[in-house]
Amino acid sequence: MVKILVIIVGGPSSNNVDVKLAKILGIKHVKLIYKEFPDGESYIRYPRPEDVKDEDIVIVQSLYKPQSKHIFELLLAIDAAKDFEAKKVISVVPYLAYSRQDKRFLEGEPISVKTLLKTIKNAGTDYFITVDIHKEYSLKHFGEGAYNVTAMGELAKHIKENVKPANPIVLAPDKGALVHARKVAEILGNVDYDYLEKKRDLITGEIEVRPKELTVKNRDVIIVDDIISTGGTVALAATSVRKQGARRVIVGCTHALLVGNAREKLSKAKIDYIVATDTVPSEYSKVTVAPAIAEVLKQILKI
Amino acid sequence: MVKILVIIVGGPSSNNVDVKLAKILGIKHVKLIYKEFPDGESYIRYPRPEDVKDEDIVIVQSLYKPQSKHIFELLLAIDAAKDFEAKKVISVVPYLAYSRQDKRFLEGEPISVKTLLKTIKNAGTDYFITVDIHKEYSLKHFGEGAYNVTAMGELAKHIKENVKPANPIVLAPDKGALVHARKVAEILGNVDYDYLEKKRDLITGEIEVRPKELTVKNRDVIIVDDIISTGGTVALAATSVRKQGARRVIVGCTHALLVGNAREKLSKAKIDYIVATDTVPSEYSKVTVAPAIAEVLKQILKI
Repeated sequence: MVKILVIIVGGPSSNNVDVKLAKILGIKHVKLIYKEFPDGESYIRYPRPEDVKDEDIVIVQSLYKPQSKHIFELLLAIDAAKDFEAKKVISVVPYLAYSRQDKRFLEGEPISVKTLLKTIKNAGTDYFITVDIHKEYSLKHFGEGAYNVTAMGELAKHIKENVKPANPIVLAPDKGALVHARKVAEILGNVDYDYLEKKRDLITGEIEVRPKELTVKNRDVIIVDDIISTGGTVALAATSVRKQGARRVIVGCTHALLVGNAREKLSKAKIDYIVATDTVPSEYSKVTVAPAIAEVLKQILKI
Repeated sequence: MVKILVIIVGGPSSNNVDVKLAKILGIKHVKLIYKEFPDGESYIRYPRPEDVKDEDIVIVQSLYKPQSKHIFELLLAIDAAKDFEAKKVISVVPYLAYSRQDKRFLEGEPISVKTLLKTIKNAGTDYFITVDIHKEYSLKHFGEGAYNVTAMGELAKHIKENVKPANPIVLAPDKGALVHARKVAEILGNVDYDYLEKKRDLITGEIEVRPKELTVKNRDVIIVDDIISTGGTVALAATSVRKQGARRVIVGCTHALLVGNAREKLSKAKIDYIVATDTVPSEYSKVTVAPAIAEVLKQILKI
């Protein structure tokens, strides 16, 4: 029987997930050589292209800002791997950019996540793995061979060990994220979970959010979401539940983009603890998505 | 007989070439709505997608810096045009990024221009038009339906009218660009042309460039090239020919990228006149490539 050989290839925005994956799986790791030309074009190079021939190649490249630059670097890495006669190309994209433009909100818009997944596939990707994609149904644009992994298990374990929440309730900022709250609640020991609804305070007139069914009074509140972008949603949630008598406010999210003045908003909201993953580099990236991705890779590669 | 209908669509980096094309061809023009999301992702929208159905769509998007962002915007525009059932999609890319990585200079490199042209094609482009691509043979990566247009004719006419060169000689900075010098020399009235070769001055030890066969003494020298990037090549050429007794030094190029301290280098080289095209916006963009592109569009679209 021929041994299946696999190489993990780290792209310029792998954020070290490549190294962690190689360590977990015990397989060969290669970092792409990277530079930027004076005009801003990206340059990548496989240090030993002859190693790629007839092997399964796992290219790790996360698509945080500058998103399009990282997208094109991924395409270069895929296309070159095919040129060097890689057997299968598995693109691991811990954070998938453009995943929130997942339908036509207005007539005339592209479905950007479709454009991106089609492009990654057409470049020569056989299997695609991402983490907590904004909407799971978007994977259909890649078709067969697309996998979504959740980081919520790892986030929940981290919160359990490091924060030890008392009388916890897990809250999603909206109905669409309830699946994340359910997962975290389960790992915390089947605790309560709910999602937040926008309401106007009848006395002050201010917008606030409240759990649909449950109450937060004297409880440690864990707010979970896939993305923190400008921080507005999470900050409003934290401020609201605090007013409603929450004891501690803990935030867990997969992708901490933290754009614009997100840090200021989070700081003003006086959140007791924030944890995110390494799909996007940030000061909150205390959890790695590598073990979750490794599980899927083991299935795909039968290793 | 059914009238063939065509719409010119301006992308966010069309640099007004779209408007000029529509005017020359006398056909409908649409500008894509554009914005940037707070996280840096690009957003485009067709104002009236129903107009696209069953029409030939010419999307104009130049790929100057930030190149990858403009690349992804082009892919969004192509993919959406296909969604809205455009008949044919013609991608007009006045400046093609990544065209200088046209072979593997080192083992393990991607052929980036191949990756890019494949990507543009796979997104749904039926015909592709660019201007003064760095190497014409790169078009093969798109395959059937790819066209390269030269701006050298328009540059020559502009120089003839605005500079009125006396006893001119046209010089290419290297042998590869000799084709451009020949074209410009022809339009100036079959004047002399040559290319420059690097030589070390035997007295000072400095590197300079000299025409391979001819002399520049007391002549107006016109240096022509496809791209001015960092400006080093053109500045060295200008300084060298000036030392060799050239009267005026005129520079004509298609794509004035002007990266880093290019402007400073060009200023120090005391060039008498610089002209470039509108494939890339710059203070030297005095010539438009629209008429040259329009000629090819007429052929393709039979209008």
